Amino acid sequence: VRGVTARRGGLVVEDLPEPTPDVGDALVALRACGICGSDLHTLAHAESLAAVAEAMGDPGAFRPEEDYFLGHEWVAEVLELGPGAADVGVRVGDRVVSVPYLVRPETLVPLGFSNDFYAGYCERFLLTAALCRRVPNGLDDAHAALTEPLAVALHAVEASGIEAGDSALVVGCGPIGLALLACLRARQVEPIVVADYSATRRAQAAALGAHLVHDPALGPAVDAWRDAAGARPLVVFEAVGVPGVLDDLLATVPPQTQIVVAGVCMQPDTIRPLLAVVKELRLHFVYAYREDEFDAALRALAEGELDVGPLVTGRVGFDGVADAFAELRRADEHVKILIEPDGPAVPTVP
Amino acid sequence: VRGVTARRGGLVVEDLPEPTPDVGDALVALRACGICGSDLHTLAHAESLAAVAEAMGDPGAFRPEEDYFLGHEWVAEVLELGPGAADVGVRVGDRVVSVPYLVRPETLVPLGFSNDFYAGYCERFLLTAALCRRVPNGLDDAHAALTEPLAVALHAVEASGIEAGDSALVVGCGPIGLALLACLRARQVEPIVVADYSATRRAQAAALGAHLVHDPALGPAVDAWRDAAGARPLVVFEAVGVPGVLDDLLATVPPQTQIVVAGVCMQPDTIRPLLAVVKELRLHFVYAYREDEFDAALRALAEGELDVGPLVTGRVGFDGVADAFAELRRADEHVKILIEPDGPAVPTVP
Repeated sequence: VRGVTARRGGLVVEDLPEPTPDVGDALVALRACGICGSDLHTLAHAESLAAVAEAMGDPGAFRPEEDYFLGHEWVAEVLELGPGAADVGVRVGDRVVSVPYLVRPETLVPLGFSNDFYAGYCERFLLTAALCRRVPNGLDDAHAALTEPLAVALHAVEASGIEAGDSALVVGCGPIGLALLACLRARQVEPIVVADYSATRRAQAAALGAHLVHDPALGPAVDAWRDAAGARPLVVFEAVGVPGVLDDLLATVPPQTQIVVAGVCMQPDTIRPLLAVVKELRLHFVYAYREDEFDAALRALAEGELDVGPLVTGRVGFDGVADAFAELRRADEHVKILIEPDGPAVPTVP
Repeated sequence: VRGVTARRGGLVVEDLPEPTPDVGDALVALRACGICGSDLHTLAHAESLAAVAEAMGDPGAFRPEEDYFLGHEWVAEVLELGPGAADVGVRVGDRVVSVPYLVRPETLVPLGFSNDFYAGYCERFLLTAALCRRVPNGLDDAHAALTEPLAVALHAVEASGIEAGDSALVVGCGPIGLALLACLRARQVEPIVVADYSATRRAQAAALGAHLVHDPALGPAVDAWRDAAGARPLVVFEAVGVPGVLDDLLATVPPQTQIVVAGVCMQPDTIRPLLAVVKELRLHFVYAYREDEFDAALRALAEGELDVGPLVTGRVGFDGVADAFAELRRADEHVKILIEPDGPAVPTVP
């Protein structure tokens, strides 16, 4: 099995032992896997995942000093079904997506953040057949691979309780920021103001229907929102996930604002709680999605209800993944790069 | 006017010019004023108030390098009514409490945090007559002076949406922690687990009806809550307001928990957002109260619906306020110390 291993902060392409499907498993062949911002964060701050495992009551579940396998935004083809997996709804040859968990006795393995199981950065890997969803005919791989990030955005929007006629400020136009924009558009939120330092990403947000795009270098995004939205109810979506962004928002948003924190900041961050106190802010941290939200994202993509036009900006094979990470770290041109087993050795340019 | 001035991080007792009531004002004589944790925080971190003024769109409203006047938890007697203040409901001789704001053209002066107007640490000061509430007969000064902190607690409990049968963890048994306890008791929340390093304060919490008191030196308060409450819905109330407490909670509370942040942390604080993200925590920062909540707190105190038995632990005159601050900073014995114009020169002991 050809695949990319994360090892001591770097990425190594190698040939790995073949996986064997256990009870309830499907062995699948990768068709495409998106590179997520969390993958970049994890490679840079793997020790944070150990702290998470401990806080979640499962110390030792992630061992940052050992190899691990990234990739949780895949579309794949079923090659073989393990014992007991024949009657759960997927068949050999199906193209499938799934929530990124592998069911094992007494544990759910978080695929894409595991030391022990391959995931979307590998040619072949194991899924739990009962969690797989057949990709509807007509939805191509590039769109199907967006199911996961769109489910993340859909969940964040659901959690916010935002309604048609409310306004939104989306800080950050990476894949999650743009997916949030698509979901907010579908919900008739207006105006949707988006902010990003990258001109390319701002152009993509405009193409996806943002009502106003703002360059934070010119001043606080909240000021741009105020000019556009006046007194409309506001929900702020933080979709950057690097230190400092949250405190900037605490300092600039209006009193009583709800900030939905969808960005995954893996480093410690410093805030001024007093600003949040006197403004009575609400910080709603969100993560992942429920299974029904994942299904809803797949359905909305297949029905054409979510416009994700320019989200995928590049393709790459295993040998070019490290270069793709470097491109994405610059956050200048690319939004979403898909890994494909037969992709090019260097990332395509937008 | 005898009074205490905050000057360059210290407290100075001095004779100040007499204030004159303007349109709509009541000139009042102090009967008692509680010393609030925010007063201690402000004296130590006055520069934070300037940052707040700026974040609230009013830069320059507080000048930390100049003198200012503390005290926002008073009961006072009306001495004189200014022009136009005769028909708003209070009369000369009334004992009154009020929300700590003085109405001035185009601004609300936050009494107790102002460079320009005296407040509860002064013998006489100005209130807006229309904001004054007559203290019901039979409610003594010591209880009436608790209206403000009880309104803070009532507001925090209202904002949380906690219901009878839910459980609560109150972190910190200072005046706000104990006021929260009283409000949660009145709402039939059970169990209420409270945590404080001070044995004296834990004993006071037990006397006020906490179902379990916990010493954080023995381990995370959340573990004590889990033992007592099992699977009951939980709301955490943070009532400490010093750096590090919030991150401890992020690390230890169960997923999906709402943390109501009632403590006023005036210094920058470092958190690990990743822990809040993967647990999908909600941080609800709360501050002050609405006018109707202030009225409800006064009514509940007068009706005996809120048991605040041992909250007031000491009394002091102006000359002993600096000593009282030192006592409260130790947070060992005292909970609430009242300033009284004819109080003793050194704080009474509990």
